[in-house]
Amino acid sequence: GHYIICGFGRIGSLICKEFSAKPLPFVVVEKDAAMVDLMEQDGPGYLVLRGDATIDDVLLKAGIKKARGLISVVTSDTENVYITLTARGLNPDLFILARAGEEGSEIKLKRAGANKVVSPYLIGGSRMAQAILRPTVVDFIEIATGHEHMELQMEEIMIPHRCGFIGETLASSGFRKETGVIIVGVKKQNGKMVFNPESHTKLEAHDTLIVLGEPGAIQKLEQLVGCDSCAEELIKKHRKTNG
Amino acid sequence: GHYIICGFGRIGSLICKEFSAKPLPFVVVEKDAAMVDLMEQDGPGYLVLRGDATIDDVLLKAGIKKARGLISVVTSDTENVYITLTARGLNPDLFILARAGEEGSEIKLKRAGANKVVSPYLIGGSRMAQAILRPTVVDFIEIATGHEHMELQMEEIMIPHRCGFIGETLASSGFRKETGVIIVGVKKQNGKMVFNPESHTKLEAHDTLIVLGEPGAIQKLEQLVGCDSCAEELIKKHRKTNG
Ligand SMILES: [Ca+2]
Ligand SMILES: [Ca+2]
Repeated sequence: GHYIICGFGRIGSLICKEFSAKPLPFVVVEKDAAMVDLMEQDGPGYLVLRGDATIDDVLLKAGIKKARGLISVVTSDTENVYITLTARGLNPDLFILARAGEEGSEIKLKRAGANKVVSPYLIGGSRMAQAILRPTVVDFIEIATGHEHMELQMEEIMIPHRCGFIGETLASSGFRKETGVIIVGVKKQNGKMVFNPESHTKLEAHDTLIVLGEPGAIQKLEQLVGCDSCAEELIKKHRKTNG
Repeated sequence: GHYIICGFGRIGSLICKEFSAKPLPFVVVEKDAAMVDLMEQDGPGYLVLRGDATIDDVLLKAGIKKARGLISVVTSDTENVYITLTARGLNPDLFILARAGEEGSEIKLKRAGANKVVSPYLIGGSRMAQAILRPTVVDFIEIATGHEHMELQMEEIMIPHRCGFIGETLASSGFRKETGVIIVGVKKQNGKMVFNPESHTKLEAHDTLIVLGEPGAIQKLEQLVGCDSCAEELIKKHRKTNG
C-alpha cells in the first residue's frame, strides 16, 4: 500500500523527503496549481495529483481504497479535520496522521478519525524548554533520531512470526553480546510497552524491540532476527558466557 | 541567574509553563500591550516586562547582564535575529536559544550569536515522518520526554567534582544493579559524547550521564551520586556479584 500526503507546504515537503529517502511509495495531493506546476518542473519527481483533498473523488483518484495511510498536513486546521473525516469515511482501516496547528484541534482531529495527531508548535515549544532543562538529553535524542551522526540510531525491530529466538530471554539470545546494541524497550503484540526490560525478559513472536546502537550494529541485529539458521548458533555461542 | 523569554506566543507560553513547573526563574518580554494586559489579569502570575526585545534598554531592564540565558521566540525570524544580535552584544557569555521559522534562518541566527536554534516546522515534519517510519520509536521518545507516563523518563545526571564513584566503572559503581536505570550515553567534560557505553567505562568528574529509567529510580541515582558516604557502601555491596 502507498501513502497519500495532503498538502505540500513546509511540513509536507519534509515528509516527502524522508519518505523518498527510505523509500516509501506516496502520492502528494495539492490544490494550489502554482505549487503543482513548480513541483512538476523543478521538483524531485514526486507523484503529484492536483486537487482538493476534502473531496471524495480526489481521494478516490489518489487511491485511498488501497492506501496504507494518509497524512493530512495542509495549513488550516479546519481543512485537516475535513480531510480526515472524508478519508475515514472512504477507508475505515486507513492509518491517518494529521497535523494540529491551533490549541484544541487535536481532540477534533481525533474525533474526526485521526489515529495520531502531531502539533509542531507543541513539540517545538517542548523541545526548546528541554534544550534548557536537559540539554544533553536533547542532544542525545537529536542524534539518535537524526541521520547526520552515524554513531547512534534508535530503531525498531519486529520479531517475526517464525523466529529461532522466540522463547529465549534477552540475555540468552546473545543480542547484546553479539551486536552491542541496547534494547531499551519492548512493545508486546497487545500494545503494552515494557520499558528498560530486564535481561530475563522472554522474546515472543511479534514483539517490537526498541533498540539503540550504531546503525551497523542495528543492521546486524535485523539480519539475525530475520535469519532462521542464525539463532541456534548464536545461542550456543553465548551460552557459556551466560551460564 | 534567570532566563529571559522574548515573546509570549504559542511557543513562548509553552516554555513558560515548563519553566514554572521545574521551577526555573524567568521574566517574559512582550511588546504587545493587549497580551501583557491579558497576562497580568488572567495569567498564571509570570513576571512580565512590556517592551521591544530588540532594544538594548529593554533587555538591560530585563536583567540581561546577570541572566543565565535568553530564549527568542517571537513570530518573525527577522526579529529573532535582531534580538539575538542585541543580546549577544550585551552579554557575551549568555546562552541564547532561538526559534527559526523559515528555511535558511537557522544559519543567520547562529551567525547572530545563538548557541542553539530550534525549528518547530523541521522537528514537526521529522516527527510526522518518523511516526510512519518508526511508530514505536516515536511512542517511546514521547513517553520518555513527556510528563504523563511515570514508567519511563530520560534524564541527565552530572558526576560532581568530588564524588566517591569517580574512578569506578559503570559496572563496579553498582548503578544499574542498585537502581535499575540504563546509562545510554555519557557526555565527557570536553563535550565528547560516548554512546551506549560499555560496562568497563570509567566514571570521571563532570561526566554527564544520560539515563533511562523510572522517575523514582532516576531520583535514587541522583541521590547516590550526590551523597559522599554512599559510594563506598554501594561499591562493596555489589562487588561480589561483579567479580
Ligand atoms: Ca542518528
Ligand atoms: Ca516520561
